[in-house]
Amino acid sequence: MLVQKYGGTSVATIERIKQVAAKVCAAKRAGNDVVVVVSAMAGETNRLIALANQISEIPDEREKDVLLASGEQVSVALLSLALKELGQPARSYLGHQVRIETDNAYGKAHIRNIDSRKVVESLNKGEVVVVAGFQGVDEDDNITTLGRGGSDTSAVALAAFLNAAACEIYTDVEGVFTTDPGICPNARKLARISYDEMIEMASTGAKVLEIRSVVFAKKYSVPVHVRSTFSGLEGTWLVDEEASMNDLLVSGVACDKNEAKITLQRVPDRPGLAAQIFGPIAEAHIVVDMIIQNASEDGTTDLTFTVPKADHKKALAIVEKTAPAVEAKGVKVDTDIAKISVVGVGMRTHAGVAAKMFEVLAREGINIEMISTSEIKISVVIEAKHADLAVRVLHDVFVEKQGNV
Amino acid sequence: MLVQKYGGTSVATIERIKQVAAKVCAAKRAGNDVVVVVSAMAGETNRLIALANQISEIPDEREKDVLLASGEQVSVALLSLALKELGQPARSYLGHQVRIETDNAYGKAHIRNIDSRKVVESLNKGEVVVVAGFQGVDEDDNITTLGRGGSDTSAVALAAFLNAAACEIYTDVEGVFTTDPGICPNARKLARISYDEMIEMASTGAKVLEIRSVVFAKKYSVPVHVRSTFSGLEGTWLVDEEASMNDLLVSGVACDKNEAKITLQRVPDRPGLAAQIFGPIAEAHIVVDMIIQNASEDGTTDLTFTVPKADHKKALAIVEKTAPAVEAKGVKVDTDIAKISVVGVGMRTHAGVAAKMFEVLAREGINIEMISTSEIKISVVIEAKHADLAVRVLHDVFVEKQGNV
Repeated sequence: MLVQKYGGTSVATIERIKQVAAKVCAAKRAGNDVVVVVSAMAGETNRLIALANQISEIPDEREKDVLLASGEQVSVALLSLALKELGQPARSYLGHQVRIETDNAYGKAHIRNIDSRKVVESLNKGEVVVVAGFQGVDEDDNITTLGRGGSDTSAVALAAFLNAAACEIYTDVEGVFTTDPGICPNARKLARISYDEMIEMASTGAKVLEIRSVVFAKKYSVPVHVRSTFSGLEGTWLVDEEASMNDLLVSGVACDKNEAKITLQRVPDRPGLAAQIFGPIAEAHIVVDMIIQNASEDGTTDLTFTVPKADHKKALAIVEKTAPAVEAKGVKVDTDIAKISVVGVGMRTHAGVAAKMFEVLAREGINIEMISTSEIKISVVIEAKHADLAVRVLHDVFVEKQGNV
Repeated sequence: MLVQKYGGTSVATIERIKQVAAKVCAAKRAGNDVVVVVSAMAGETNRLIALANQISEIPDEREKDVLLASGEQVSVALLSLALKELGQPARSYLGHQVRIETDNAYGKAHIRNIDSRKVVESLNKGEVVVVAGFQGVDEDDNITTLGRGGSDTSAVALAAFLNAAACEIYTDVEGVFTTDPGICPNARKLARISYDEMIEMASTGAKVLEIRSVVFAKKYSVPVHVRSTFSGLEGTWLVDEEASMNDLLVSGVACDKNEAKITLQRVPDRPGLAAQIFGPIAEAHIVVDMIIQNASEDGTTDLTFTVPKADHKKALAIVEKTAPAVEAKGVKVDTDIAKISVVGVGMRTHAGVAAKMFEVLAREGINIEMISTSEIKISVVIEAKHADLAVRVLHDVFVEKQGNV
C-alpha cells in the first residue's frame, strides 16, 4: 500500500489534476493499493484567508477552519472525478468521514487518531481512496485544520495508521536541498536525510515538509519519499539515521523569514517570571521558538522570544496584557528578522561548528541578535536584509568546501 | 424563533455579508432566537460546476455533491465571522453537524430528518445559529445536496423541525409576482398566495422559491415570508388557502425555459410500454414532468415527455438504451421549448380557463406542442421563441383585465 500526497501546485489547475490522476492510475495499475492525500488548489487557501480578513482582523478560529477546510473539499472531489473519468473507481473522504480525529486547537490541530475502517473497505473494493489533507474533526465534530503544510501530516499519519509501505510526497521541487536553490545556486539535492536532520531543517524554514509530518514519520518509521510531481526523477528519502551520515558535518543551511521577535524591556527579574509570561501564550496555542533573557546590573532583564509571524499580533496582544503585571518598561516587536540555521547529525561528533559559524558571519559584518542550539543544529537570528548573504556564505563554507553530500 | 434564509445574491460579496449580519443582529436584538440558512455566494456554484465539467461531461454525482457543498461551507463561515465581528455570538453548522439527514439521491436529495439538538443547545447559549443550506448527509455520512434552490428547502425544513414562528426567505426580488416583471412590466406583487398556488407557480418556473420548500411549508403549515434583502418592504406571505382567494380566477402566469422535450418516435403500442421507458429514468432520479402519447392508425405511438434541461443528456442516454428494446424508430430531443402556465385556486370553481387560454395563444399564431392540467393550473409547451409574447398576452387577459390581485 502506497500513500501519495500532492500539494497545492500539483493540483493548481484542471489540467494538472488530470495529470495527477494519470500518475495515481499508473501506481494503481502497478499493483499498489493507493491512498491519495491532496491539498487545496494553489492560491485557494490564500483567497479564503483574504475573504476572512476583509471581515475581521483576527478571525474567529473555529469559523476560519470551517472556511479553509472547503479548499481541500474541492480538490478531493475534482481528483475523484478525474480518476473516474479515466475509468478508475475512486472515492473521496473528508476529515469527518475518514475519520481523522484531532484535538481542538483550531488552525493548528494535532491528529490523535485515524479510524481507517472506511478507507480499508474502499481499498478492498478496488477503489483509489482520495482523502482531504489539512483537515480533521475534534471529538465534538467541529472541523479543525492542521495549519500550513498540514496535508503532509495528514499523508504521513495515514501512512502510519494504515501501515503503508511508503509515503510519497509530491511537490514542486525535486527533493530536499542543502539550502534554498533560489538563494544559493550551488545548492544540491540530498539523496537521503535522517528524520532528525529533516526535523531541524523543517523547523528552521526549509519549506519542503511540514515538521509535524516528519515527527510522525520518525515515530512510526514511515519511509517518506519527497519528489517532484512534474519530473519522473528520484527525490530525497527520509530515513532513520545511518552511520555514514556522521561523516558529513553539515547537511544543510536553512533560512526562515516567517518569525517575528517580541521583547519585554527591563522586567524586574524574579522566579516565576517566565511562567507568567509564556503561560497565556501557550494557552493560545502559539508556538514560541527561541527565548533569550539578558539580566542586567540593575536587577531587571530584557526578555526576547520569537513566534510565527502569523501569530505575532495575537502574541503581542497577550504580552501587552501581561506587561503591567510583570512591571515591564515596554514591549517591542520586530518582524524584520530571519533565522539562519546549519543542520547536520555530524555535529554530534564534531566540535567547533558554532564558533566557525559566528566567525563567518562576523567577517561579513552581520550582527547576531539571538542564538539557539540543539545537538544537530545551530540557529541564529539576524536582520532580514542579511539573510540571503548569510545563507550563501554558510553554504559555501560548510557544504561546498567540504563536499559533504 | 425565526428562521431566516439568505440566497446567493444576498451574500455575493463581503460587503453584503456584513449587511446580512447587521439584519440578523437586528432580528436577534428584537428578542428572537434566530437560525440563519445561507446559500453559496452568487456565482460560486456555477464556478464549481464549470470545474467539474472541465473534467467530465456527466460528473459522478457523489463527488459533484462533495464539490458543490463547499460553496455553502464558505458562506456560513464568513457570515459567522461577520456576526462575531459585530459582537454577536454565532456558530456555523454544516449538514453533517446539524445533522440534516437525507436519502442518497445525490444532487437532488430529500430531507428525511433533522436532529435539532445541537441547534437548540446553541440557541440556548444565546448564539445565532448559521446553517449551511442546500446540503445534508445520507445515513452513511456521504455528503448530499438538495438541488438548485435547495437552501429554501433547508430553511423551511429547519423551521418545521424547530417549530419556528416563521420562515423568512430573503431574496433579490420583492416577493411573488403575478408574472416575471422582466417579461411583463405590468406584473404586480401578491400580498398573499396559497401554498397550492405557490407549488404550481414554483413547478412552472417562477423561480422565487424551490417547490419542495413550499411542499414542506404546506405539510407543516410553516408561515413563509418571501421578501427582499435590500428593501425593508413587506413581501409575499405563503399561507393556507383562504376563501377570498377563490374570487380570483388566475393568480399568476409562469414561464419555464428549463425543460427539454424527448420524443420516442413510432413505438409499437402495447401494455407495459410506459413502465419500460420511464422505469430506468425514475431509477436515475430524473424527474419527468409532462408526458403525452399519440397513438396513430398503424398501431405505433409517438411518446413525448419533458425533463429538466440539466438532466436531458442523462435521460437521453437512458432512452437510447431502451429504444431498441421497445422498437422505437427514433429518438428526438428538443431543448428549445418553454412551458407557460396559468395558475389560480379560482379555477377550481370556474370553467373555461383552458379554452380561453388556447384561444388567446392561437390568436397570436403560437402553436401548442403539449398540454398538461391540474385542478388549479393549465400548462402548455410552446417554442421557446414565443415564450415572452405568450406570457404578456396571457397576463393581460387573465390578470390585468380582471384586476384580480
